[in-house]
Amino acid sequence: MNIPKDITLIEVGPRDGFQNIDKFIPTDLKLNIIDELVKSGFKKIQITSFVHPKAIPQMKDSKEVALTATEKYKDVTFVALVPNLYGAKTAYESGIRNISCVISASETHNKENINRTVDESFDELRKIRSQFPDLNIKLDIATAFGCPFEGIIPIEQIFKMIETALEIGIDQVFLADTIGIGNPSQVDKILKQVSEKFPENSFGLHMHDTRGMGLSNILVALQNGFKTFESAIGGLGGCPFAPGAAGNIATEDLINMLEEMGISTGIDLKKLVEITSTIKNSIKPDLTSHMANMCIK
Amino acid sequence: MNIPKDITLIEVGPRDGFQNIDKFIPTDLKLNIIDELVKSGFKKIQITSFVHPKAIPQMKDSKEVALTATEKYKDVTFVALVPNLYGAKTAYESGIRNISCVISASETHNKENINRTVDESFDELRKIRSQFPDLNIKLDIATAFGCPFEGIIPIEQIFKMIETALEIGIDQVFLADTIGIGNPSQVDKILKQVSEKFPENSFGLHMHDTRGMGLSNILVALQNGFKTFESAIGGLGGCPFAPGAAGNIATEDLINMLEEMGISTGIDLKKLVEITSTIKNSIKPDLTSHMANMCIK
Repeated sequence: MNIPKDITLIEVGPRDGFQNIDKFIPTDLKLNIIDELVKSGFKKIQITSFVHPKAIPQMKDSKEVALTATEKYKDVTFVALVPNLYGAKTAYESGIRNISCVISASETHNKENINRTVDESFDELRKIRSQFPDLNIKLDIATAFGCPFEGIIPIEQIFKMIETALEIGIDQVFLADTIGIGNPSQVDKILKQVSEKFPENSFGLHMHDTRGMGLSNILVALQNGFKTFESAIGGLGGCPFAPGAAGNIATEDLINMLEEMGISTGIDLKKLVEITSTIKNSIKPDLTSHMANMCIK
Repeated sequence: MNIPKDITLIEVGPRDGFQNIDKFIPTDLKLNIIDELVKSGFKKIQITSFVHPKAIPQMKDSKEVALTATEKYKDVTFVALVPNLYGAKTAYESGIRNISCVISASETHNKENINRTVDESFDELRKIRSQFPDLNIKLDIATAFGCPFEGIIPIEQIFKMIETALEIGIDQVFLADTIGIGNPSQVDKILKQVSEKFPENSFGLHMHDTRGMGLSNILVALQNGFKTFESAIGGLGGCPFAPGAAGNIATEDLINMLEEMGISTGIDLKKLVEITSTIKNSIKPDLTSHMANMCIK
């Protein structure tokens, strides 16, 4: 099977995973899990979100988490999610130099999610870019493979958003399957269209496992030469429209598949399973992760 | 994506799934679920196993299940698992005309599983074939993608078993990933080797989802032109070596993926989810099925 060997993996559990947990996770426990993720070999971790604490109380300790982690590990890239210019400013002051911004390909979803039109979101992104020239900015195009309100998003809308992002000077664009609805045929088609339209650029993928197609979609992405993926330890995260559903692709399931396929990830799978054990015992007892459910007694 | 459109799906939940449930499932409930599976559109269902009731007490009602189902639905193919000549005889007397026999590619696993050498198992299969010329016999080659005792099984052993099965006059051979350890690269390689060696024959696949790679492996099989798959409603079943792990590929996850990919299965997905709801409420509360967990409130 013709697939890339040099894969880049970004762990997003401490942000995308934790923000879905209702009960506040003590800051020390968050930092402890980030420590363990670093020890497992991750070089890039999305650790927190600089959102208003009233919107997501779980992320109210974002400054402390960011300051502590960036001080402690100089050779690890810590990413924070940032919804606006104010968030970018606070993230910057907290030692963060890599941010992730989300704009939905669906107008309705963008409005529901961040109460802005897509154009307004891009205006804010322009401001962040111009005021923080040394920030590495990643854009996630949410609902790129389908929206709970609008269904399939026309590929022209994805193209237009990528073009705008590149014109603004965004460093990397990710396509996100926010509600885990993309199927292998469709993912194959969209990735081929995007690769053909933007042959000079590489794109990352952020896939969810809501309907169990997460790893199949990653496989199709690998077959198309894509090599940058986000996932969450324990399969944390999720979709507010489907409370009991699986969340992000479970990092340990992804690492296991890649390693079994002969792709060296540099991540210690055994260590990851230990972390899922901590998460199962102290944060979320019912994990959807296959490796966790197989290995944790 | 170049994949076959004419897929054959066999539901194995009432056998491979139920036999993993410790508490006896009342015969009426079993028959009710078989009814619902027929109503959902399945034309081929593995419904029971003619094993010794001391070995698997869950299957002690195999005669009643088989007689009732075969009497009631003349246009549905009901398959029973049969471990030996005596089982084949009892199955035949209970109206069954399609049996499934299992021989492991791993000597150690075969010994652990059915206390016979592979050669002894084939001898028994020969007896069944000669004494029941009008039985449709399927052979499952267990641990074809890896064994908990012997690791990877040499492809020559798989070839040899297929050759013996064809020579005996077995009607169809399935490759089974009994412990859900196959990965997409390996599955791709093995399926290509088998197709090249036996270009005139078609093979079925019985994959487990223990490590979350079940649907990815099916995808690879589709890409290789394979089109006959077994799965279990609710993702029931499992592996005695990993008690908490996921079992068979969940039928509803498979149907959802295929339908989303534009492959018409003839199976009613909504009905399947209703059946998983019954199973969750009365048989197994913690299902690993993604569609069940997403849809059941």
